[in-house]
Amino acid sequence: MAGLILAYAALFSCQHAFMASASHLDARSDLHFPLHARGTNTDGSVPVYKDPDASIEDRINDLLPRMTLEEKVSQLIQGDIDGWMNMTDPLDDTLAFNATGLAQTMAQMGGAIWAGYLAPWDKIVFAITVGQRYLMENTTLGIPAVFQTEGLHGFTDNGTIWPSPIGLAASFNPGLLQQAAATIATEAEGLGYGQAFAPVLDLSRELRWGRVEENYGEDPFLTGEMGNAYVTGLQTGRRRNTSSTAVARMAATCKHFAAFGSPQGGLNIAQVSGGERELRTMYLKPFNRACVNSLSIMTAYSSYDGIPATANTHLLTDILRNEWGYQYFVTSDAGSLDLLITTHGTCADRECAARTGVENYSGEMGGGSYTYLTLPDQVRAGNISVSYIDDTVKTILRTKFSLGLFENPYPYDDYRETLRTSQTRELLHQMEQETIVLLENHNNILPLSKDISSVALIGPQADRVTFGDYVFFNASLNGISPLAGFTQLLANSSVQINYAEGCELWSNDESGFAAAVAAAEQSDVAVVMVGTWSLDQTLLWTPGTNATTGEHVDLSDLGLVGAQLALVQAVKAAGKPTVVVLVSGKPVAEPWIQTHADAVIQQFYPGELGGLALAEVVFGDVNPSGKLPVSFPHSVGTTPVFYNYIKGSRPVDPGMVFDDGTLLFGHQYVLDTPVPLWSFGHGLSYTTFNYTDLQLSNNLVSTSDNFTVSVTVHNTGSVDGKEVVQVYATDLVSSVATPNQQLVGFQKVDLPAGSSQTVSIPVSLEQLAVWNVKNTWAVEPGQFLIKVGTSDQSFLSMNLTVT
Amino acid sequence: MAGLILAYAALFSCQHAFMASASHLDARSDLHFPLHARGTNTDGSVPVYKDPDASIEDRINDLLPRMTLEEKVSQLIQGDIDGWMNMTDPLDDTLAFNATGLAQTMAQMGGAIWAGYLAPWDKIVFAITVGQRYLMENTTLGIPAVFQTEGLHGFTDNGTIWPSPIGLAASFNPGLLQQAAATIATEAEGLGYGQAFAPVLDLSRELRWGRVEENYGEDPFLTGEMGNAYVTGLQTGRRRNTSSTAVARMAATCKHFAAFGSPQGGLNIAQVSGGERELRTMYLKPFNRACVNSLSIMTAYSSYDGIPATANTHLLTDILRNEWGYQYFVTSDAGSLDLLITTHGTCADRECAARTGVENYSGEMGGGSYTYLTLPDQVRAGNISVSYIDDTVKTILRTKFSLGLFENPYPYDDYRETLRTSQTRELLHQMEQETIVLLENHNNILPLSKDISSVALIGPQADRVTFGDYVFFNASLNGISPLAGFTQLLANSSVQINYAEGCELWSNDESGFAAAVAAAEQSDVAVVMVGTWSLDQTLLWTPGTNATTGEHVDLSDLGLVGAQLALVQAVKAAGKPTVVVLVSGKPVAEPWIQTHADAVIQQFYPGELGGLALAEVVFGDVNPSGKLPVSFPHSVGTTPVFYNYIKGSRPVDPGMVFDDGTLLFGHQYVLDTPVPLWSFGHGLSYTTFNYTDLQLSNNLVSTSDNFTVSVTVHNTGSVDGKEVVQVYATDLVSSVATPNQQLVGFQKVDLPAGSSQTVSIPVSLEQLAVWNVKNTWAVEPGQFLIKVGTSDQSFLSMNLTVT
Repeated sequence: MAGLILAYAALFSCQHAFMASASHLDARSDLHFPLHARGTNTDGSVPVYKDPDASIEDRINDLLPRMTLEEKVSQLIQGDIDGWMNMTDPLDDTLAFNATGLAQTMAQMGGAIWAGYLAPWDKIVFAITVGQRYLMENTTLGIPAVFQTEGLHGFTDNGTIWPSPIGLAASFNPGLLQQAAATIATEAEGLGYGQAFAPVLDLSRELRWGRVEENYGEDPFLTGEMGNAYVTGLQTGRRRNTSSTAVARMAATCKHFAAFGSPQGGLNIAQVSGGERELRTMYLKPFNRACVNSLSIMTAYSSYDGIPATANTHLLTDILRNEWGYQYFVTSDAGSLDLLITTHGTCADRECAARTGVENYSGEMGGGSYTYLTLPDQVRAGNISVSYIDDTVKTILRTKFSLGLFENPYPYDDYRETLRTSQTRELLHQMEQETIVLLENHNNILPLSKDISSVALIGPQADRVTFGDYVFFNASLNGISPLAGFTQLLANSSVQINYAEGCELWSNDESGFAAAVAAAEQSDVAVVMVGTWSLDQTLLWTPGTNATTGEHVDLSDLGLVGAQLALVQAVKAAGKPTVVVLVSGKPVAEPWIQTHADAVIQQFYPGELGGLALAEVVFGDVNPSGKLPVSFPHSVGTTPVFYNYIKGSRPVDPGMVFDDGTLLFGHQYVLDTPVPLWSFGHGLSYTTFNYTDLQLSNNLVSTSDNFTVSVTVHNTGSVDGKEVVQVYATDLVSSVATPNQQLVGFQKVDLPAGSSQTVSIPVSLEQLAVWNVKNTWAVEPGQFLIKVGTSDQSFLSMNLTVT
Repeated sequence: MAGLILAYAALFSCQHAFMASASHLDARSDLHFPLHARGTNTDGSVPVYKDPDASIEDRINDLLPRMTLEEKVSQLIQGDIDGWMNMTDPLDDTLAFNATGLAQTMAQMGGAIWAGYLAPWDKIVFAITVGQRYLMENTTLGIPAVFQTEGLHGFTDNGTIWPSPIGLAASFNPGLLQQAAATIATEAEGLGYGQAFAPVLDLSRELRWGRVEENYGEDPFLTGEMGNAYVTGLQTGRRRNTSSTAVARMAATCKHFAAFGSPQGGLNIAQVSGGERELRTMYLKPFNRACVNSLSIMTAYSSYDGIPATANTHLLTDILRNEWGYQYFVTSDAGSLDLLITTHGTCADRECAARTGVENYSGEMGGGSYTYLTLPDQVRAGNISVSYIDDTVKTILRTKFSLGLFENPYPYDDYRETLRTSQTRELLHQMEQETIVLLENHNNILPLSKDISSVALIGPQADRVTFGDYVFFNASLNGISPLAGFTQLLANSSVQINYAEGCELWSNDESGFAAAVAAAEQSDVAVVMVGTWSLDQTLLWTPGTNATTGEHVDLSDLGLVGAQLALVQAVKAAGKPTVVVLVSGKPVAEPWIQTHADAVIQQFYPGELGGLALAEVVFGDVNPSGKLPVSFPHSVGTTPVFYNYIKGSRPVDPGMVFDDGTLLFGHQYVLDTPVPLWSFGHGLSYTTFNYTDLQLSNNLVSTSDNFTVSVTVHNTGSVDGKEVVQVYATDLVSSVATPNQQLVGFQKVDLPAGSSQTVSIPVSLEQLAVWNVKNTWAVEPGQFLIKVGTSDQSFLSMNLTVT
């Protein structure tokens, strides 16, 4: 949500009357207030909604009638702890709050409260404790708030930073991601957070878009599986001392619902073109897989075929609520209801925007003009039925009961013990290793031997920690740069590191080339690290900074910026074997590197241990096992290059421009090719794998059956390695045009050198369904080709017949 | 259709048993055969279908029951005159035919017959005469065929070649286009043609696509107006000696129905993403405007949201037939029904493809496997209802009755008198002048004076006739190159022309630069002509040729190919004023030229007199009046740049790369801008215009009213000039997201220097309708901004209130 907060902050002025000293307040014990009448029963009994053993639905139905209209609306407007805390200085640790601001916030915006600040942990604990205690003890009904943070690839307030989601997806390891998400939840839970704004399930099918790094790639199946792992990892468990009916300890927030990832021109927030079939079969699939049990969903800023996501009744009501039966809290994104007025032009005023939001059963995030403040008067004026408000309030109450917040909404005393633990760091280390993708390895130049004399580390990414967006100011201080990682790994070796920056990321200045070339010449091998870069959430939105990826940072060219390619070429010309490492948040389109580098490694934006993991891969301590979650184009003008294009949509008759300027003319394209440099699922290993014995549990299934694909994988090389077994399906004849192939299953296996393993991958026949011309899902009888391989390789295949 | 004929030719082998000598045949008098029984009535009376005074519907209803199943199906399969003529050699003039082939063709494919060959005119006349006479006199029912040709920008068999449609659109002069289309019809009509495969109403919203030049630009309103002018011009009139019920002399063929112009990746025939709203409000608008009275429509190759156009019942039946009431002949494109099997994967066999086609009331063009040959057996097997065939046959019969072919299907004896007339050439000359767009004119360097000593004509487009696609082999021999045009214009002046090619279009070879720079240095001013190029329909599909635009020639980069930009830069560096002429079939994305050239002229692919018109504009004999029908992007990575984007879809925070390599970082885009170099409607003049007195006939209208925009235009400069008054509307608040603006009216006016004219432009309120969430058209009450200007300039504006 960070993006629009800045843009829309001017629309809303928070009123801080004064700052009360905390000296006379112990947040844990001094804020006791008498209960009011509606919070109890006339006979003195405890209301059902306060009964931890009652069913959640009974509790909701008991509570709702006790609420005033203002209390209901307050549940639907996102509050902010800066309503009672001074959060302007991230280093300030004053444990004081503004009592007037607290009361005002809770009266108007007390349902879900933004607390995702960079601040000392004890200050967050104080703020949340004060807030919850006020709600529990000083309001009539005692409804706790859910406190919200970011957590896309790590808890953002000095929690452990993981690789960006595009990198997490490259692991093709949902089990590992589930464990990672669990650590993120653990880090935030202790501080009192109940909701994280993650995962992002947008698809990276428009590569210019700045937020490609936040997604799990281009494929709906992989995205759904990784998203499901994230939601499961984040939510599974129960808060301490809470009710037995609680189903989660942290609300995941699937976003951005829906079809946000393919904005026109790659321009952030721009409209998305598409029809119902593309919506169903592509954009909605990951949400349907991962989010039906997610305790929250966030809407998108964009419009789809002319309907703003926040106003899309077909999407938010017909599909999400009615078809999918989604019962939990849907929130708008920051300021997005105001966009109906200022951007989409579908509302003339705040009253209309508010009605649009709540009539689609969504709460309102801050960052705008708080249009929902108009709702009480609109209800009284008869402009909107209170039933919309009631039904929406039920969804957030359901989320909060499901979190067990009514029983224990408070931070834990021992929160420090669950933050940045060594176990988390160990898990992170494995994840960093599994995200690295070996793209090219000519003559098996990698891994490097520690017996070499020297290695040149060159390039603007070498001595830099490049995190993706959605980390907070100075988060990179917790990270290990490649230079530091290589230094650490080689500490006990005799390998000399010759480092040269070569050039800056953001400049065409080549004055550093000479030193870089000299470093290469002095070394046995050169490793050149180039790529894209993002910034933390403070700097990213600060005027005068620069970045090439991240929210609201959209590229018109996917090549390396500035002097970077020329640096690679200069180093390569020095004559030493040259390994290129692309550290980036999205595909870099540089065919010269594919053709001329001796090896190419893709490291999507890493987490804190990325520099070490990279060194481990380069020197063979780790055998790379990452696979591309997104295809790499030759150039921006050849996009899209996603592998699962609709049949017939990729004629290939390529031309090219040779290095010497000679032109070879083709037709698709005239001087380039729509075939990707590297396609989805690609990733090399230091060992070799062979596949045999492909079998289907049934070659002949009915339209309601599922089936299992089994295949034996052999590690035929000399080192241990992990392989991602990928299963693709093609519907050979269908009533509507279907993708030429689609991923329907995968499993990552760890195979010692020389060993074999038979892998069984269940496939739901739902994966083979089409959205037919009657606008319904159908598995159509006929032949399907089932393939094991990558998106551009077929190791084994056979036909499945559906009858 | 030419494209797929090559690709699919292998699927079908024509059988020529022998070639009969024509020596004993006079095509006009010797082919008399007895009538058979069904072609008359038992009482001896003339059947209604032969009565020229009967209504067309009565004639259809009388004829259909007389037809055998095979005769019906034959009406639906496109024949080809090569079934009875040897058409392999375009220079051959043998007037002989194959009688067996003729009979076979007519038995199986006798409804509509392709005759669009490059051949001597008398051979075409012979072939058509033989064919029609056979049908009229040697078949039972005597149903004439409709003979078909290409006519996108001129009758293709050595007819007059006009500018490519993108250039025709730049004239913004529908009246002139209507006259042009009339000449195209006249040239073809005399030879016996009854149908031309034009106009193309696809929208140029994906600029990489090779066929951008065939369209009337990016805007649905302009495209609809130009398309309507073309259809009206082509059709209006009546064949000689025909019935009074005939409504047209030539069937226009609107194509490609629908949404063909935005293929994914710009790749020809690729799928198109989009929903119902974009379909209705963008892609279908031109067809609805121009084609309801067009006597034929051709379907598209592509799929839209997963439904192949040829199989799109919603499009072809629900909308076209039922909503629009379209009653005439719909034909598939060449080989496109086979694509259901080979490409879209929605049919397993020819039987399915045939059913799909005819159940959508479409005939089958050749170029494929002739799937409709399976129809008789399928009817007999009960696999398809004959009613589909009957209803489809009715549509082609209706087209042929409407053309009056039953009364006179023959060529005219005096056909030569209506081909390539001086009147046509005069009209062409005016059109050439009106299509040229003056993009930049720094310091009013243009027009050049004939008092200068010398002008350098430089560049690979200078001594070349660059026609767009859809012309036949060697058509360019009829054209005047710029060098020839300047030479002709300056013949009586003392201006010396210094010509240098500089470089080839298709090479990075800079060896010609020195001569080009020398030519510039020796001259008072340099005119550098660069751009894109296409080829004629023979060479375009010949392996080993090269081109950068045209059918199946798709670009991944919109900059100049090869050494062309470097040539412009070298010439400019010579220090002389430098005028750049872009001769192209689509926008060329070269921001350096915008910034550095002293003037920039856009000449979309011209017709035969383009070289002369260009010289006339450069030297001021003609004041340019063309306007851009399509916006020009800074680079391919900044596309789309069409002006009428949906609100909110174009955030602008540009960065750039300066000439010296300095980088200025922005966000949309990081190093470029989504703002076009030149936007839709832009075009300068040698005079200046001022606008005053904007008025609406009513400021307050009901949702069923229309209104008129009037404004007074003043030519405030010193030379006469034509101005295109453009009216744009913005729906300020709408129930769905609407374009930020859309063209709703325009008129071209001719204003002597110093004069004024009040222009009144009627606007149908339908133009302001939205396709709402209930999936219906609605004009919504509220405020609309009515602007007079261009897409990026506002001269005057005011509000309209709809109540």
